[in-house]
Amino acid sequence: MTLHFADKWFAACGDKGAPVCVGLDPVLDRLPTTPGDPIVAIEKWCREILDAVAPFVPAVKPQLACFERYGSQGMAVYERIVNHAHQLGLLVIADAKRGDIGLSSDHYAAAFFDPDHAADALTVSAYLGPDTLQPVINAAAKGGQGLFALVRTSNPGSDAFQSLKLADGRTVSEAMANIIATLGNAHVGDCGYSLLGAVVGATKPEDAVELRSRMPEQIFLVPGFGAQGGSAKDVKACFDANGQGAIITASRSVIFAANVADAARQLRDDIAALL
Amino acid sequence: MTLHFADKWFAACGDKGAPVCVGLDPVLDRLPTTPGDPIVAIEKWCREILDAVAPFVPAVKPQLACFERYGSQGMAVYERIVNHAHQLGLLVIADAKRGDIGLSSDHYAAAFFDPDHAADALTVSAYLGPDTLQPVINAAAKGGQGLFALVRTSNPGSDAFQSLKLADGRTVSEAMANIIATLGNAHVGDCGYSLLGAVVGATKPEDAVELRSRMPEQIFLVPGFGAQGGSAKDVKACFDANGQGAIITASRSVIFAANVADAARQLRDDIAALL
Repeated sequence: MTLHFADKWFAACGDKGAPVCVGLDPVLDRLPTTPGDPIVAIEKWCREILDAVAPFVPAVKPQLACFERYGSQGMAVYERIVNHAHQLGLLVIADAKRGDIGLSSDHYAAAFFDPDHAADALTVSAYLGPDTLQPVINAAAKGGQGLFALVRTSNPGSDAFQSLKLADGRTVSEAMANIIATLGNAHVGDCGYSLLGAVVGATKPEDAVELRSRMPEQIFLVPGFGAQGGSAKDVKACFDANGQGAIITASRSVIFAANVADAARQLRDDIAALL
Repeated sequence: MTLHFADKWFAACGDKGAPVCVGLDPVLDRLPTTPGDPIVAIEKWCREILDAVAPFVPAVKPQLACFERYGSQGMAVYERIVNHAHQLGLLVIADAKRGDIGLSSDHYAAAFFDPDHAADALTVSAYLGPDTLQPVINAAAKGGQGLFALVRTSNPGSDAFQSLKLADGRTVSEAMANIIATLGNAHVGDCGYSLLGAVVGATKPEDAVELRSRMPEQIFLVPGFGAQGGSAKDVKACFDANGQGAIITASRSVIFAANVADAARQLRDDIAALL
């Protein structure tokens, strides 16, 4: 029987001690050493990061843009990195933010859930409408994967669109939250959470409270802890009353730290102390 | 000097006789013959389609999901197909609908505008906010490429999000249109159009009139002509008073036709007759 993604996530957090995730963003000019071939350099660096963080965190989140930037060869590195992460017992959240209509949505599911290098979860966009998420939801339900739909982000310009006020009093991101909650309700695991979660940025705690009430069954994928400005207090609002239902992600503050393993342990300990 | 994308597009339409584009969606089970290896099959089929349509249309629009579905090998096919299209004198609009924050936005620009297999234009999503488009706009301005941001689509569920009413009377997609118009205004070519265009579906002519007035400098990329239900009358509203400023795209009605060259010629003639 296929294990539901949310239940898989709860079990992995229990094993590692905190609901945290390390963002894997291989940016060539940030790497400590630069050998001649960028493809070789990013693969070597990614493997070292995975080896260093695996004892302390349940999941990693490769940023697809960083791999796609090197074309088909970069995507081949991504595929090998997914398999290396799995060998280390890490869950993989593919941060690709894909979204398209009908058959193309099916194809993106097939791309990221391909058995040869299947991610455990995928970030998606629902700007095109709820119907466009249904094919990826169906694929994820079948394969035991999760999805995180873009709802609220923490970049400087996010308010210009996501905070626009609707006639009914909701913001654009709150309306998206309701769409995601409705879509996800048909796919709730034993733990009470849906396979369809939400991306909710860490820098706006008052938004997180509102969005948590609109999406009681959504696991929040929370980027922006550490380098992007989110603090421990900010992310607390993303969790439910039992200290569950959120995945706190740190990228640069861990992967570019002087000691990556120590930084991953610190991330785990900081979030565990919060809950 | 780098030629502005919009000016390049105007010249290409002049050469071919109509502002049309063929969507390249290699879907394995729709191909006329299926040899053993899907990668070989889709590449062969794509090349044949490009050869057939090149005399009649200025541009093709590969759907990235269909290539990414075959992983890094599929992406290698995409890269070779871009170069084959260029050898045939076709412009390439990469239909990838990418969108991410900051550095990741830079990376997507680097991915699709990589000189080894650079598309002439890319579809993008601005749900995350106007700031997240700026890196791809800067890259496109430098390289002479174009962008088409998702504004209004024609899939059955698009209204559920895009038609929500704001407090100020606009819809969500109209608010997005204003964001895109403002962002694009700094990058207008000699022809009067910006390098930043908009994806506007073909099945809602009343929306097209409203969006045209909000985005006078945006070239509209109009999918959905033919198989998706858009008619010639529907797409007319996407053009300006001079019969310019829109790219009418047909996919299935051309690429899966019994005679692909005839279908491409018909698409060109149908749209030319309208203008």
